[in-house]
Formats: sequence, C-alpha cells, structure tokens
Amino acid sequence: MNEPHTPQNVKADLVARIRAAARQEQFLEVVSAEEATRRFQAHLDLTPLGAEDVTLGTALGRVLAHDVVAEVDAPPFDRSNVDGFAVRGADTFGATETGPTTLTLNLEVIACGHVPAIEVRAGTATAIATGGVIPRGADAVVMIEQTELIEAGTPAIEVRRAVAPGQFVSYAGSDIARGETLLRRGTIVTSREIGMLAACGLSSVAVVKRPKVAVLSTGDELITPGKPLKPAGVYDSNGAIIAAAVTEIGGEPAVFGAFADDEAALERALRGALEQCDMVVLSGGTSKGAGDLSHRVVSRLGTPGILVHGVALKPGKPLCLAVIGDKPVIVLPGFPTSAIFTFHAFVAPVIRARAGLPADVAEAVKARVPVRMMSELGRKEFALVALVRGEDGLVAFPTAKGSGSVTSFSQADGFIEIAALASLLDANTEVDVTPIGGAANAPDLVIMGSHDIALDVVIGALSARGFRARVISVGSQGGVSALKRGQCYIAPVHLVDPETGTYNTHLADKDHELVHGWQRSQGIMFRKGDVRFEGRNAQQALAAALADPSCLMVNRNAGAGTRVLIDKLLNGARPPGYANQPKSHNAVAVSIAQKRSDWGVGIEPVARLYGLDFIPVSPEHFDFLVATARRDLPAVKAFLEALEDSAIRKDITALGMRFAD
Amino acid sequence: MNEPHTPQNVKADLVARIRAAARQEQFLEVVSAEEATRRFQAHLDLTPLGAEDVTLGTALGRVLAHDVVAEVDAPPFDRSNVDGFAVRGADTFGATETGPTTLTLNLEVIACGHVPAIEVRAGTATAIATGGVIPRGADAVVMIEQTELIEAGTPAIEVRRAVAPGQFVSYAGSDIARGETLLRRGTIVTSREIGMLAACGLSSVAVVKRPKVAVLSTGDELITPGKPLKPAGVYDSNGAIIAAAVTEIGGEPAVFGAFADDEAALERALRGALEQCDMVVLSGGTSKGAGDLSHRVVSRLGTPGILVHGVALKPGKPLCLAVIGDKPVIVLPGFPTSAIFTFHAFVAPVIRARAGLPADVAEAVKARVPVRMMSELGRKEFALVALVRGEDGLVAFPTAKGSGSVTSFSQADGFIEIAALASLLDANTEVDVTPIGGAANAPDLVIMGSHDIALDVVIGALSARGFRARVISVGSQGGVSALKRGQCYIAPVHLVDPETGTYNTHLADKDHELVHGWQRSQGIMFRKGDVRFEGRNAQQALAAALADPSCLMVNRNAGAGTRVLIDKLLNGARPPGYANQPKSHNAVAVSIAQKRSDWGVGIEPVARLYGLDFIPVSPEHFDFLVATARRDLPAVKAFLEALEDSAIRKDITALGMRFAD
Repeated sequence: MNEPHTPQNVKADLVARIRAAARQEQFLEVVSAEEATRRFQAHLDLTPLGAEDVTLGTALGRVLAHDVVAEVDAPPFDRSNVDGFAVRGADTFGATETGPTTLTLNLEVIACGHVPAIEVRAGTATAIATGGVIPRGADAVVMIEQTELIEAGTPAIEVRRAVAPGQFVSYAGSDIARGETLLRRGTIVTSREIGMLAACGLSSVAVVKRPKVAVLSTGDELITPGKPLKPAGVYDSNGAIIAAAVTEIGGEPAVFGAFADDEAALERALRGALEQCDMVVLSGGTSKGAGDLSHRVVSRLGTPGILVHGVALKPGKPLCLAVIGDKPVIVLPGFPTSAIFTFHAFVAPVIRARAGLPADVAEAVKARVPVRMMSELGRKEFALVALVRGEDGLVAFPTAKGSGSVTSFSQADGFIEIAALASLLDANTEVDVTPIGGAANAPDLVIMGSHDIALDVVIGALSARGFRARVISVGSQGGVSALKRGQCYIAPVHLVDPETGTYNTHLADKDHELVHGWQRSQGIMFRKGDVRFEGRNAQQALAAALADPSCLMVNRNAGAGTRVLIDKLLNGARPPGYANQPKSHNAVAVSIAQKRSDWGVGIEPVARLYGLDFIPVSPEHFDFLVATARRDLPAVKAFLEALEDSAIRKDITALGMRFAD
Repeated sequence: MNEPHTPQNVKADLVARIRAAARQEQFLEVVSAEEATRRFQAHLDLTPLGAEDVTLGTALGRVLAHDVVAEVDAPPFDRSNVDGFAVRGADTFGATETGPTTLTLNLEVIACGHVPAIEVRAGTATAIATGGVIPRGADAVVMIEQTELIEAGTPAIEVRRAVAPGQFVSYAGSDIARGETLLRRGTIVTSREIGMLAACGLSSVAVVKRPKVAVLSTGDELITPGKPLKPAGVYDSNGAIIAAAVTEIGGEPAVFGAFADDEAALERALRGALEQCDMVVLSGGTSKGAGDLSHRVVSRLGTPGILVHGVALKPGKPLCLAVIGDKPVIVLPGFPTSAIFTFHAFVAPVIRARAGLPADVAEAVKARVPVRMMSELGRKEFALVALVRGEDGLVAFPTAKGSGSVTSFSQADGFIEIAALASLLDANTEVDVTPIGGAANAPDLVIMGSHDIALDVVIGALSARGFRARVISVGSQGGVSALKRGQCYIAPVHLVDPETGTYNTHLADKDHELVHGWQRSQGIMFRKGDVRFEGRNAQQALAAALADPSCLMVNRNAGAGTRVLIDKLLNGARPPGYANQPKSHNAVAVSIAQKRSDWGVGIEPVARLYGLDFIPVSPEHFDFLVATARRDLPAVKAFLEALEDSAIRKDITALGMRFAD
C-alpha cells in the first residue's frame, strides 16, 4: 500500500486519484430512501425461503414453514385427573359421609400407561391413578380421600360423596383435538410452541430456512479483531456487528472477513460468496474518494446489477444496492454508524422477509430535544439520541459523535428522523424517538459533565449494587447547565473560578451543593527521551518548546479546564500546533505518542497509559455538583456513599488520583 | 408394566398401592410459596457461575462476566471524515469562491491504512481520503468539492472556503478512549456490544458460563415424541418444553429423556445427571398416588436433601425442592401446566441468577374478569387467561382447560394470581395480568362460540392476509352471549330453534345478523364391522343398540347442539353410557375407537378421521352471527370475504362440509 514516494510517480498517482474522486462524486445519482427501496425490491423475491426439517431441540427461535395440524388427540384418551376410583356416577348418587355407598373393587389397578382390561359395571369401581385411562363403563372418578378401603373379604370401597358423570375426567381431545390446526405458519417457535409440538408426538418440525448472508468488509486499513493494530490501521467492527445483526434478525451469517482494496481479490471473494449464499453484504471500508472500488467490482458481477448508488440519507449517502441474478448484493458505507443504519433500513427488511418474519415495527416514544438541531436540506436525517427522564417527560439528547463512531449506535437509546425538507429542529420540539435495542429504560442516575477514568470506578461500584447510571460527557460547563435545567442529578466538574483561582466552589448555590471528589495532576506530556523536555521543570520545558520552531504542540478545546491552564502557561505565546485542539486528554496523548505533535498538557494517568513522560504543573480538583433536592434518591445516595468508601478510594488512588482528606 | 391379573396378586397389589397413596398424601408438609422459596434458596449459591472465553461470533445473547476496559482508542488516530486535503486551518483564512487561496500539494496521498510520511507545513496540503490519518502539522481537512486541482507545474490546489482548525477531524479516542470502561459485567451481548468489542480489537470475550441443567421425565405412560403412541401412552411434552425454557432463560439443557417408573434406573440416571450438570430438573410423570417414586429416589441422593415437598399453590401442589451438595434438584409436578408454572416460579430464578441474568420482571396489565371465578382457600392460585380488547379496556377470559393441559399455558396471554386467602373473584373485578411470552397483543379479530375443523381453513386464509384471529371455544350459546356483551366480533353457532326446528335464524336481531356458513352431516358413529349397526339406517341402528344391554353409548354435554339431536333420537330412552357426556365430537369418536363405548352421535368428518363408520341422521347448519356495527372492520370484512371465496369453499368441502348455495 505504501509505495515509494518519488516525485514522479506520486504526482501522477495524485492527479489520477484526485480526478477519480471528483468523477465518482458525480457518478452518484442520489435518490430518495423510498425510491431506493422501490428500485431494489422490484427485483427481489420477498417471500419466505423454502422449508427444512429441524429437531425440536434446535427449533427455538425458528419460524414455522407450514400450518401444523394435530394428528393425535391430547389427552389421547379420557383421563383421570385425580388418584381415586373409576365409577359410574349414578352408583354414587345419595352417598354421604354418614351414609356411604359400597362398591366392589374390580381386580385391576389403572396406573399410568396401563390399558384397562375390565369394564366397570354397575356397583363396581376400579382403582385409578392421576393420568390413568378411564375404563369402559365408567363415567366419573371419585377421589381417594372420599373413600374408605374395605380389606376384609372381597375388596371394596365405601364412597362418601356422590360424583356427577364427568367428574375428574379430562375427555380425549379436550386439550388438542386431532385434525385441529394447532399452529400457524409464520409463528416464531418459543418453548410454548415446542411443548405443543411435543404433545402431538412431533420430534421435528418444518421451519423456514434461514437466509444465508455473506458478510465481507473491504479497506486497506482494516485489521481483523484479535490481531495487533498496525499504524494507520483500524479494527474491522462492521464485519462483526453486521454478522451478529444478521443472526438477530433470523439470518445465518457467513463471515468472509476483511479484504484489502484489491479489485481482483475482492471480485473473486464476491463471486464465491454469491455462489454459496442467498445474499451478500459488503461494507466498504471507510475510504471513498481515494479507494472505493466496491461498486466497480459489483457492477461487473452480472445483471440486473447496480440499481441504486447514492441515497438522500444521513448517515448513509454512499449506499449501493444491487441484484445479481435473484440475489441481493449490498455495499454498505464503511463508517460504522452509516453501515448499521443502512443495514437496518434496507437490508434487514429483506432478510426478515426471506426468513418468514414480519416487518420489525418499533413503537416510537415522545420526547423533546433540549437544543436546536441543524439538518442538511434534501437528505432525510437520522439522529441518534440518548433518552433522559426530565421534569416533564423524556428528553432526547443528540449523541454527537458522528457517523464514524462505533459507540454512538451502540450506546444510543433510539433515533429521530428529520425530514429531507427540514433544515432544523428548534429547541424543545417534540419528536418521535424510535427505540433501539429493546425498551428504552430511563437509568436510575444521570450524570452529565466532565469525564474521568476514575469515574468508571464509582459507576462500576454502583452497577454492582444494581444501580444503572448513564454518563453523558458534555464537559464541565455543559454539566452545570444540564444540572440547573434538571436534566441530570450529578455534574462532575473541574472549573477554576477566574476571580479566586480556586476550583469548583463558585459553582454551588442554594439549590446545588459541591461534593469533593479527587485531585488529578495536570502537567506537560512528551515522548520519553525527548531531550527538549527530559529532566526539566515546567518553566524550563516550556521555554525549550517555544525556542524550537519545529517543535509542535497539541492544544485543547476552548472551554476545557485544561485549556485555561495551557493559556496561563503560554502567557500569550502561540507556538505551532496551537490551532490543533482536540477534546480529550487521550487525543492529546495519542497525537504525541504517534509523533503528530511533540507536547501537550493533560493528566498524569493518561500520560502513563500511553508510555509518555510527564512534568507536573498543577493539581486539578475533580468534584461533583449535586442537586440538593435529589440528594436522597437511592442512586444518588449510593453514589455519594461510594465516594467515601475506602476500597473504592483505593482503586481510584491506584489510577494516580489523590484525595485531599 | 401390565402384570397378569390373577385375583391373588391383584388384590395384594391393589391394597398395597391404595394404602401407599393414602400415606403419601399425609407425607406432604404443605408450605406457602414464599416459605418454599426461602427454604430452597437458603441452601443455594445464587451468584453467577464462572467465566469462559467465547469468540465474538458465538457471544450473542451471552452475559459479560467482567467489565470490559478499552485497551485501544477508537479512532486510533486523528482521522479525516471526508475526502479532501489535510491543511493548516490558518492557511485558509480569507479564502472565498472568488478569492481562493493556493496551497502546494505535498507528494503524498493519504489513503486508508497509509502512514503519513510528510509533515504539512505552512502553505502546503496533502491529499487525504475519508478515514485517513491526519498528518503531522495539519489541523483540519478541506473537502475536495471546495478545491480546484492545478495540474500545471508543481501540483497545487485552490481552496475556495476557509476551514477552522478541527474541521472534518475525528480526534483519537473521541469514540472510545483507551482506559475507559466500555461495557459492564452483567450486560447481555447484542450485536451492538459485539460491534464495540470488535472496534476495540477483541475477538473473544469472557462471558458467564451457562448453567447446565439436566432435564428428565418419569412415568410409565410417557412416550418420546417421534415414536408411535401406544395405547394408554402420552407423549412426553414436559421434557421438550422444559429444555427449551432452560435455553430461553440462559441455561444449557442436557436432555436425559423419559424414564419408566423404575426406582433403580431413575436413581442411576439422577446420580449421573448430578455428576455432569449444575442442576437437575425432573418432571414426575402424571402419576402420583399409584406411582410417584421420584421423591423417594431424590431423598436417597444426599444432603441436605429434600427441603420442600408440597406447596400451597394451584397448580403445582406436589412440587419437590431438594439440594444435593450444592446442586439444586427439582421434581416438578407431571401435569404440563403445573410443571411449567412451578418451573418459572421456582427454577427459572435460580437458572437466571447462575447465568448472571437479572430477575425477569414482567410488567402487569390491568384487565377485568368477565365471570365469577372460584378459588380454593389456602392455596395461592394462578389462573391462565386470554386477553380480549373489550368496549372499555381489556377483558381477561379464564382458559378453563385445567393443569393437565399442554395448550392452556401455550395459548394463554397471561395469568392472574388469586391470593391464598380469597375464595372467589366477582365478575367484573379488575385484576393484574402478568403477560406470558412477550407483549400481549390484542388480536385483529376475536371469534367466540362453537368450533369446527373447517373454521381453521377460514382462519388460515385470514392469517395469510396478515390478520391475527383468536378463536375462543365457548360453545354456541356462550358465543351468542359474548357477542351481545361486545366481547367478540363473530360467533360461530349451530343452535336449533326449539319452536320452528330451524337452525340459527332465531339468533339474529336488529344489532346482529346471521351469515351463512356451511352444513355438516350429523349421524351415528360406530366401529367398522359392528354388525349391530353396519348396513342399517339410523332408526334400525338405534333399535339394535337399545336392544343389547352390553352395548354402551357415549353421549354429549347438555347445551351442545348435538345433544338436542341425540335426545330427539332417543325419545326418552336412557341406554347404558348415557351419563358419559364429553364435550366434543373428537372425544366421542375416540371413546368409540378405543372400545370404551360402542356408538355415539357426531359429525361425519370426525368419524372419518378416526376410521369409524357413519350413518347420516340430519344436516346441521354451522353459521356465523356477526355484530352489524363491526361488519366493516377490515378483519371482519376479510373473514366474510373468505367465506365467499371459491378456493376456500373447495377446501372446506374437501373436509366433508356442504354449502347450501
């Protein structure tokens, strides 16, 4: 992939690639989501696949291919429901505690599984167990508790209560009648259906075949999970999530793995997949301009070929839908959120239909968006949201990680749709949220504000006590605002009061109190062995950095507590890299570790995590602002108790944090 | 098991068995459900089992054994979100459509997977693909659409729009930060979690081991599904439904099969099961008095042994809970409804806890019972119900099939609890219904009344058109009442007007119209070759039956349309068997086929089904009473259309029915 970069070949390559990328953008005929579905499904058979017989032990979750008609009765005979004696009811008429009727015992005991041999004639009775076959001539059963055994002479019983005909008898076929349609095709098999099938004597059942779906990924950057990450490499998460989603919606994934951007190899793989499977799903790496060759390969596979390439959808625009022969071939966008959204919107309905499953209809819940949301005109937009129970109903927070994120889909509670013709949603607009992944349960505790590794220790302790906490990272200032709007219960903060230079205490007011957390050491991070910094104190290190024009810094975003510290350190200087402003300690450390910059400011535990060297500058107080009115909620109490717990404090200290008291 | 019945051995056996049964009843110390749970769980470890590593491909549905901490960042580097050029944002300040800025291109193209080699210095740009690594020196990306390539001379681009630092950059760790707790132990793995694990480079994950649960059944009558049904035999449905339910709640069933009531063999099997598995679940056949040896065998297995034998619960009284060493051993009652209820109440919580799953909390729905329900004082009673949407909320119909039924649990929508101290629920009482098997969806169409095999054909046609119909068999008269109370939309009826002798027309009124169905031929059923009936007409056959005192009839229940016909035929005669009054055509046919009686009256298709001979007596009209106000509901319309459909009529005719027009 990395060719030698001589000026000649690189220039030619560069120009060719840039031209191709520009052309490709024009190649797309972007159609609406509805039109894309129409074109795609017009070429597809959406009826269930054929049937296959499976044993009851493996039928769970499968879909019945045919109606099941009972071929036996249940019970298969008139059955006794109690332990007692089979009698003719008329013989017992008039029997009472004080005036029992005597019946001669027939010399037979009808245990379960025993075929009665003796007819119950008038004046006689036959001992019968629960589940036994009612013998010829009997029409009722008298319970053993209402009889007395007479052992002397001819065995007999005294019956002390009259029984009506039919008493304690379950008639043949009263549960399942031979000839009745017991189960309908299309039924999803649960343990309840398995019980009914077994009761009819069936050991296997015809179910709809599971559509076999080939899952492939392509991209030079992709690394198969489990292998070491190479520089510039990214783990292939699409292959895994798509394969698992195929299973969840009734398909059978065939995992072909990740392929480099090599047309010949990819074409061979796709042709093989088409031969072995009912459908092919390829996710296209994250590249588009510089390397998307998937649609070129797909366009060569056969007819009718590519039906849609480009959908007015965000995320998901570069989706490519094709049919080869009668088999769907789908190229999903490479970015994880785009891939899984388009999979659920366009591919899942086809898999479900072929698997014999009904369309998945998730019932929307009402919520309000707390902030104004912008949208692109002309593309239907799906925005992922986290749901939080507010003072007057659910609040839907947009999760703003973008379509390149793996976690945004996984951690969202649902999504909202913004129509292609809307350019924004005003704050406080009521929206329909389509839940993702089962019922959206509001958590016991909502924490919004700054994030810190040690916070995970506290949340873990809560989780072990059964409290589900949701942490939404919105920065210290965002947390304070959310807390004061009543959208969270606790806000983790580390903000310096510009007037006094102290941390956080200025944030408390009559309704919000400050609870002390821990201190973390802020300082300069740099690669081990960098002689410009090694062995120096903060002022010396800073002077060395500013003296070397090739020395690149990495800054932090405006509004971060760390940024306040950086600007104080720099005292007006603007060294190269100052404009590079990532939003987390981790991103700063990664940039330095990967030599994309040389120094930055962050907390000591993160420097350690990446094997960087560290010069301490100042301690930072990471505290918690709590709504006083919520202090006594069980989850809030548990949180505050956890902060005081010595075992938890020990774990937090081990991460490099300090407690003041 | 059928020993020779000589008077000597049978009498001894009989007396011994009856005594044992009486003793056993006293053996039970019946405790409350709460006390039973307390005694049982006091001896159990209810923490999750240990961990095992599974590949991501097999992790779906499993429970995470440990917290998962991310060991990599996602993205692992600062990443471009678009196709374009990596630049220093400051270089583009002031660029516009009409006054573009020119940047020299570095001789490098950053495709996905490519490690950048050249620093982006002031005044330069590097071509970069979506997903590419932001090179050292750059802090933003300008989209390809906002540039123009200058090919002449040194390659360069014109930039037509200013970009701020950070534009189109996803910072390292912004999605998943190294060191962050990504997933909590106890999380159930769905495709979403698999995507996150893969994104962190994990190819396997530690999950809680599934508790291995041995499933056995015992009873001389039990036949393994798939084998032919023997006389007096019953298919073992408990083994299948329990095994499937174990899988559904996170366990791994080990199916040991059905055992005859043989103490030595059963003890060997139980000891083997205890060695191989974490738990043992035995369902005890349907016998109790005459054959329940399970508790005797369990009492010999070890300590602490049997903790509970007898629970004040209906259904489920004979439940036996034991612990051997640290392993639970449960003997469920043999009757299917009792077995599955007690399984869910006492065994499922243990399996779930060991599997690391939270307790299953089903949210109850409110409904009203339409009829007075009696309950036994002193036993907590669970009553299965079908839910129907009535005029003012849900109505919970008791499904009255009894604990011996397999279908009552499988077909119920939920159950209600009647406290041990209540003896009845008045009609119209509001009750909490605990749903069974997912959300209780009210059907599109409710049909209550008489049942007929051919009705299945109509329902099947509706099902194919996407309408879900619920048929509740309550007899013709029950259907008319339910229809007039607004509890169903259609009532299948076959009732003779005693005044005119015509069928059904007298049931219509201004709010309810009669729609014609089909006619079925009622007649005398008897075994082929019975010379008393063969070749005769109905009057002759009847005379022959009445002339022979050893000839047993089987009657029908009072209120059945068929019973009206029988009484008319008998004209006051009461032959032997008259008191035997089962509630269905099937039960009548089975009784005759199994020689438990010799003749009865029923419909021709059922006689055929059992290989019986048939003498026609009179045609019977099976019609439908429909609420006029509901006629235009889509599902009702579809039902009425199906009745007119010639293909459907052909299928119904093939069952032996006739259409008048």
